[in-house]
Amino acid sequence: MVLKCDVQYGKGDTGFKLTKVGVTGVRKPVLVKREGKSNKLNGALNCSMDVYVDLPATQKGSHLSRNVEVIKEIALTSIEVPVTGLENMAADMCEKLLVHHEYADNAYVDVTAEYFRESKTPFGKDTFEIYKLIARAQGVRGRTVRKTIGVEVIGMTACPCAQQTVTEMLCCDRGFPVMSHNQRNVCILTLTMDRDVNVEADDLIDLVHRSFSSPTYELLKRDDEGQVVINAHGNPRFVEDVARVTLKNLVDGYGNLPDDVEVFVKSESEESIHKHNAYAERTATMGDLRREKAEQ
Amino acid sequence: MVLKCDVQYGKGDTGFKLTKVGVTGVRKPVLVKREGKSNKLNGALNCSMDVYVDLPATQKGSHLSRNVEVIKEIALTSIEVPVTGLENMAADMCEKLLVHHEYADNAYVDVTAEYFRESKTPFGKDTFEIYKLIARAQGVRGRTVRKTIGVEVIGMTACPCAQQTVTEMLCCDRGFPVMSHNQRNVCILTLTMDRDVNVEADDLIDLVHRSFSSPTYELLKRDDEGQVVINAHGNPRFVEDVARVTLKNLVDGYGNLPDDVEVFVKSESEESIHKHNAYAERTATMGDLRREKAEQ
Amino acid sequence: MVLKCDVQYGKGDTGFKLTKVGVTGVRKPVLVKREGKSNKLNGALNCSMDVYVDLPATQKGSHLSRNVEVIKEIALTSIEVPVTGLENMAADMCEKLLVHHEYADNAYVDVTAEYFRESKTPFGKDTFEIYKLIARAQGVRGRTVRKTIGVEVIGMTACPCAQQTVTEMLCCDRGFPVMSHNQRNVCILTLTMDRDVNVEADDLIDLVHRSFSSPTYELLKRDDEGQVVINAHGNPRFVEDVARVTLKNLVDGYGNLPDDVEVFVKSESEESIHKHNAYAERTATMGDLRREKAEQ
Amino acid sequence: MVLKCDVQYGKGDTGFKLTKVGVTGVRKPVLVKREGKSNKLNGALNCSMDVYVDLPATQKGSHLSRNVEVIKEIALTSIEVPVTGLENMAADMCEKLLVHHEYADNAYVDVTAEYFRESKTPFGKDTFEIYKLIARAQGVRGRTVRKTIGVEVIGMTACPCAQQTVTEMLCCDRGFPVMSHNQRNVCILTLTMDRDVNVEADDLIDLVHRSFSSPTYELLKRDDEGQVVINAHGNPRFVEDVARVTLKNLVDGYGNLPDDVEVFVKSESEESIHKHNAYAERTATMGDLRREKAEQ
Repeated sequence: MVLKCDVQYGKGDTGFKLTKVGVTGVRKPVLVKREGKSNKLNGALNCSMDVYVDLPATQKGSHLSRNVEVIKEIALTSIEVPVTGLENMAADMCEKLLVHHEYADNAYVDVTAEYFRESKTPFGKDTFEIYKLIARAQGVRGRTVRKTIGVEVIGMTACPCAQQTVTEMLCCDRGFPVMSHNQRNVCILTLTMDRDVNVEADDLIDLVHRSFSSPTYELLKRDDEGQVVINAHGNPRFVEDVARVTLKNLVDGYGNLPDDVEVFVKSESEESIHKHNAYAERTATMGDLRREKAEQ
Repeated sequence: MVLKCDVQYGKGDTGFKLTKVGVTGVRKPVLVKREGKSNKLNGALNCSMDVYVDLPATQKGSHLSRNVEVIKEIALTSIEVPVTGLENMAADMCEKLLVHHEYADNAYVDVTAEYFRESKTPFGKDTFEIYKLIARAQGVRGRTVRKTIGVEVIGMTACPCAQQTVTEMLCCDRGFPVMSHNQRNVCILTLTMDRDVNVEADDLIDLVHRSFSSPTYELLKRDDEGQVVINAHGNPRFVEDVARVTLKNLVDGYGNLPDDVEVFVKSESEESIHKHNAYAERTATMGDLRREKAEQ
Repeated sequence: MVLKCDVQYGKGDTGFKLTKVGVTGVRKPVLVKREGKSNKLNGALNCSMDVYVDLPATQKGSHLSRNVEVIKEIALTSIEVPVTGLENMAADMCEKLLVHHEYADNAYVDVTAEYFRESKTPFGKDTFEIYKLIARAQGVRGRTVRKTIGVEVIGMTACPCAQQTVTEMLCCDRGFPVMSHNQRNVCILTLTMDRDVNVEADDLIDLVHRSFSSPTYELLKRDDEGQVVINAHGNPRFVEDVARVTLKNLVDGYGNLPDDVEVFVKSESEESIHKHNAYAERTATMGDLRREKAEQ
Repeated sequence: MVLKCDVQYGKGDTGFKLTKVGVTGVRKPVLVKREGKSNKLNGALNCSMDVYVDLPATQKGSHLSRNVEVIKEIALTSIEVPVTGLENMAADMCEKLLVHHEYADNAYVDVTAEYFRESKTPFGKDTFEIYKLIARAQGVRGRTVRKTIGVEVIGMTACPCAQQTVTEMLCCDRGFPVMSHNQRNVCILTLTMDRDVNVEADDLIDLVHRSFSSPTYELLKRDDEGQVVINAHGNPRFVEDVARVTLKNLVDGYGNLPDDVEVFVKSESEESIHKHNAYAERTATMGDLRREKAEQ
């Protein structure tokens, strides 16, 4: 029996365009090729994917199963030929979506995945830390796909203002930093660019790591724990500083990125002295940031 | 002792502007004046608030405690003089934020709150349903504040395509709707407008209710349960239809809203036959939607 | 038409008993009578309720709508006669559930609600803090209902071990506490007792507050912020200490509570130096705790 | 410099025992050996781990870093010699914890991980579905470790009661099932047993799959979608039925499991006609269930 549900093709009675129609929360492991030992554990990234196209006013329904077919094909293919990065995978998916949805002019892909990486404590012990990778792509029929690569990194901040206040209150200025409140900070950095521009997620993670008062670690024996605390208080940072130092590290380290790369950074501190969070964000282009840097 | 931590005023070594700096997740009850019996239970709405201003490149830190002071003042004042709506409160907060942060040019307020309202089942029984209110405001120094009012409403959809397929597969066309898969749908509608334009959240809830295959209810005895199922299957809707019918109801019901009102609608179906969700959204102005309506 | 769906009464083909059958996540505002000014904002608590009874092997289905009717009746009644506490409400619901489900021998009610309360900063400024109330009850047909009252309180801990390590590493012992890592700690305390025993949630909140390195506050101007940091570092506490000091405060402050009161305390620190949390919990009776206290 | 923070060894001033002290939310990839093609994608499972020991009244602090060392060692070892199952890994961890924490008498390990597996649609198409694996272990010094293996599976239920009501309301009894409300159901099954007893997680997933009105699938083209709807409505199930049929499948399929195996099953339906969920659970031993089966 050939089933021909043509409900999707009807006009329906309410012919408005829709900006995004698709599926959200599709979980799928994807093989990504990375070098070195960590490959053994990170061969497949467990991705959560949201995939959409637009829908013209003249069509009642989008063929949602085609979105899942595109996801499935990409994941299966990755078993034989690993993808080179989630952002490149997202860009490929956008192109396939526009082929499969002939009525659509725009395609959108959002991907997140947990990612693990080896690191070193201040005293050189091996640790293994968790991050989140963020990848997106947006395709417009007839134009080059724009892709987004991003990372979420957890670190810590020690507050410079409370530190100064405490110094005054205790009349202590003894040549080493005094106590302050400190807390987890979650920092996200994303870059949006043409699909032929390439940035390494690992490099972005390193860059964000250097913006905290101190990175944080899964395993800290006594001396490392003390050193992390000393490092953080010797390098006190506001939630604003984390965002700004990330921007500075980006401008300093990525001289080759085009001016039209869109930058988003957000830093959120889970304040130890409050029940709410502190927050800072910046949206800009690389061009904007370079001009601001030049003016400093 | 007068403490003068001036850390925030320093330039710091990385003078980039920041788009938004503030506090997130501040919980606060606010009294809102509403008519009728439900007032007894809904007098205070438990709000979650995110409040930001921008920060110029020349200033190291934003005075975050001023954000909390603005929140606190608004909430305290509401005990004596209830606010007229969360979106108006958000607009007021934007204005106060620009007074308290003399260095800022932009202020942003995001508020959400649980909201309960009486309703009636198909057979007229009283029920009490839960919704989410969404309120936002954005202020630019020297310009009129723009505010956003929105609602999140839960309803249900029955799939028209599966219904047609099943009809074909079972060769059944017996004068009443056949089975299909059906599921919870969460629909959000927000309108962004000048602060002197007014829309009732209750009206938006009603409007979204009419876009589902059927509303859903906390309490359904046998006949009401059967009727909800029959209603939903007699009115099958895609996730796209929920978004579009919401847009249609909006254009039809709000002839007086200015063309520059920004409309956002999103509909998400927690598909019973999949582990992932189906999704549809539209971003447009009232002017866009009116033009599309005229072309149909 | 009288509809008589008797599906629930059939035996079904798999006659196993079920321990709990019911509804979860029902949201409902309930009026609770409290003294003082905060009443204006806290008149109604927005509760999330899970309500269950057991089901004998001989019955196919539980009448779930009866659970919602019990919830609805309690909430409506509270508009005229406010409940005296969520735990007493939960106990009343258990009794009603056993009346409405004549086939059940056990009833279970779980309730949580956000709760706001006035507080004072170290320098005496007014603040308004958020807590979570926890209430439960379990009824067995023919026996006295047992009820649970509990609170979730957010505070902060400063680590005593890192503080000592830093002191050694910096060779500093200058008469005031040195820096350490500090972080948000979320502490839950619940007491389960016969329904005629009464404990005030406000008292439990106070008791938990005294177990942290320092309470935390929504609004801290400079001197208060410095004082909170100084207080926390002068009173360093492990995650274990928070649980134990809570137990100590309980034994010291509640000499009148029967030995058979079941105590649960859990303390979770959102470690600033790690991406994971530290955790401590104790399950015991008041009798156990008194014996341990006597042995110290 | 040898740092000797002995803070943990002090008695402290509040010598109560603690039931569980440890770390929560440690994320770690672990290699698990599984057969077949899916191995390529599922080689490493991204685990979230909570690891605790008890703490005697005489010791101030637990050595939390030892918990992380145990986790780290197990994960690193798995790269060379994959673990045979998460529940066996959890049991091994309990034994190691009791070695490393010489003062503890109890060890607890909780692990969850996303898990993907190939499946077939009703018409035989390949799909790839997501599950959650649950593994736990509890060790008491001097006794055999007990371990828990469990699965979380998402399927769908169609309501038998609404189906009967609709049949009566529409006076339709035409030889095929009529419409009903249907929705996602999340079912968890866990078995707790001595560590030398072995059960396959894949078998538990299959067993739970057969308890729904129908399994659900990531990808359903038209005929498969129709068939899933028809299957579900031909096999209507209450939330109670899902729990009970799981128990029945377990008793029928696991004749070899000892009577002292502890069984927990919970089924939660995200009701399409309500904003809240329906819920059923059973706690029992295999012996209990066998006796109840014999009495039917």
